[in-house]
Amino acid sequence: MEKKQNIRQISDLGEFGLIDHLTSDLKIRHKELVKSIGDDAAVFESGNECTLVTTDLLVEGVHFNLIYTPLKHLGYKAVVVNLSDLYAMNATPKYITVSIALSSKFSVEAIDELYEGIKLACDRFNVDLIGGDTTSSLSGLFISISAIGTAKKEDIVYREGAAKNDLICVSGDLGGAYMGLQLLEREKKLFLSDTEIQPKLDGYEYVIERQLKPEPRRDIIESLKNAEIKPSSMIDISDGLSSELLHLCKHSDLGCKIYEDKIPINPQTIAVSEMFRLDPSLPALNGGEDYELLFTVPLSKKEEIEKIKDISIIGYMCDKKEGKYFVPRNGQDLKLKAQGWNPL
Amino acid sequence: MEKKQNIRQISDLGEFGLIDHLTSDLKIRHKELVKSIGDDAAVFESGNECTLVTTDLLVEGVHFNLIYTPLKHLGYKAVVVNLSDLYAMNATPKYITVSIALSSKFSVEAIDELYEGIKLACDRFNVDLIGGDTTSSLSGLFISISAIGTAKKEDIVYREGAAKNDLICVSGDLGGAYMGLQLLEREKKLFLSDTEIQPKLDGYEYVIERQLKPEPRRDIIESLKNAEIKPSSMIDISDGLSSELLHLCKHSDLGCKIYEDKIPINPQTIAVSEMFRLDPSLPALNGGEDYELLFTVPLSKKEEIEKIKDISIIGYMCDKKEGKYFVPRNGQDLKLKAQGWNPL
Repeated sequence: MEKKQNIRQISDLGEFGLIDHLTSDLKIRHKELVKSIGDDAAVFESGNECTLVTTDLLVEGVHFNLIYTPLKHLGYKAVVVNLSDLYAMNATPKYITVSIALSSKFSVEAIDELYEGIKLACDRFNVDLIGGDTTSSLSGLFISISAIGTAKKEDIVYREGAAKNDLICVSGDLGGAYMGLQLLEREKKLFLSDTEIQPKLDGYEYVIERQLKPEPRRDIIESLKNAEIKPSSMIDISDGLSSELLHLCKHSDLGCKIYEDKIPINPQTIAVSEMFRLDPSLPALNGGEDYELLFTVPLSKKEEIEKIKDISIIGYMCDKKEGKYFVPRNGQDLKLKAQGWNPL
Repeated sequence: MEKKQNIRQISDLGEFGLIDHLTSDLKIRHKELVKSIGDDAAVFESGNECTLVTTDLLVEGVHFNLIYTPLKHLGYKAVVVNLSDLYAMNATPKYITVSIALSSKFSVEAIDELYEGIKLACDRFNVDLIGGDTTSSLSGLFISISAIGTAKKEDIVYREGAAKNDLICVSGDLGGAYMGLQLLEREKKLFLSDTEIQPKLDGYEYVIERQLKPEPRRDIIESLKNAEIKPSSMIDISDGLSSELLHLCKHSDLGCKIYEDKIPINPQTIAVSEMFRLDPSLPALNGGEDYELLFTVPLSKKEEIEKIKDISIIGYMCDKKEGKYFVPRNGQDLKLKAQGWNPL
């Protein structure tokens, strides 16, 4: 056997590069499989409906820090990030499985708190916890959740499907979760340097809640359904607006233009950004974990979309040749880059 | 808030105790859910068929040791332990999702090897890899796999369903995987004390392969189908014969009697057990990870079962009042105890 020459580091590839590398040669064996890797969830036909499956793995020290993350919030968040992926396919979540690996530092009471959050999310989003695995780890807490949902085949919305001139829409506001994380990290550092210091988080509840307890936008999916609008493409914003919009462009083979003055940012996110001497558009574009929905609709739906609460039109899809641009309030158009929040 | 008084350690509860504790108050929200937590897989109806879901989490240093586990074998095993759960429900595996968390010590080439094993298992068992998550860990490798299968509702075999006088059957032979692990652990210790020492594993290939590369018993499921025998209850042997048989008894509300001289043990397993000064029945009863099938069939099927290759009848189910006993070659009947291989 030849000895391998160039040992490559995984960090050279990045998360998406690694996934492409590992899955580029996959065959499809089951004809019922409608969508495999490459969207928010996989889709297969089962009877008259489709079943959708998505999964997320949360790692202590990488995705969460227990110094400032209450276990109940963590359990809730671990579930809803998966439900968000199903809503982003226009599907209805039904079941989850929960696997956890935990070190001996966790008591039964600690795990009870984690499960309180998991069960709260199940209650709120009408989901059954149907299985899982519980084991030990040598260090730290690992939470692997899979969520299963259903949808009629014709209702499912993919990343591809956007057309030229479609409006780019986003729910809620952006950048809050990232600024909440910056605040929590700052207080953690102060606390670690002097454990007498009490965290100063009063008045920052909104951005902190955005980080610790995100809410998946089932309400937006319902509003769109009530208005009889089916998005032409959709994704949830876990890695940041730029990164997700580039996914929609790539899968729909289009370009895009979005406008700084249209991007929804909460006043508290702006205040915290300025405190950190950051242009608030930066966390809005590249901060992750807002779990808002990014989607496109035909231009003909403009008036109807404008009537729906908590949706902003931030730009439009264009021909691929026109590129992918962010139009700032002042100055020249900037090429969109995926420098999203990426824990790998 | 009152301060909590009695902080309980998770080890006080054990894996099954912890699962009971966490899931005892679960509600069922979806009427399509046929079986939730408490069997090898969850079952829900989807169209004319049922969909089954199972999940397993493998942790470095707990479930595997990379000193002696080739990554390709690990990938293969991580998939097949899940498929084994689906076969144990008499279902057909169709899809898997694979989530991994890995530390910076792993190169792209290492992950390629892991995925080679994953893809080999997909090829061999006709399964599509449809999704997953890839992230970093601060230390060690974590592999969380979910498997999804299908079955007709009337074909599914649960842990409950055994009747009095049903024959207890087991596929293949038992205890090999445990003795393979003992050998590998012994060589690891020698190697760690003196890295010049080369492992002496010649002649022990069978038990080592049982540990490193178990095979789920799709062939047994097919043989039973061809013989038109539907087991009355079934489970796969991951934690050891005693532990799994007690599950069948508990769920079917029965007792059992199994006979030492009927339990299938490979000659190499016997030889290695004797080398370790162990009664070979001990690993057969309590060693885990053989991934053989344990099932019950009506007494009327005795002749037909005896015709099927690689199935042994090891005892029978009896009234709960008669207890759960192991009948040794010599001496008094022993009460069966679950002292299975349990990494939590």
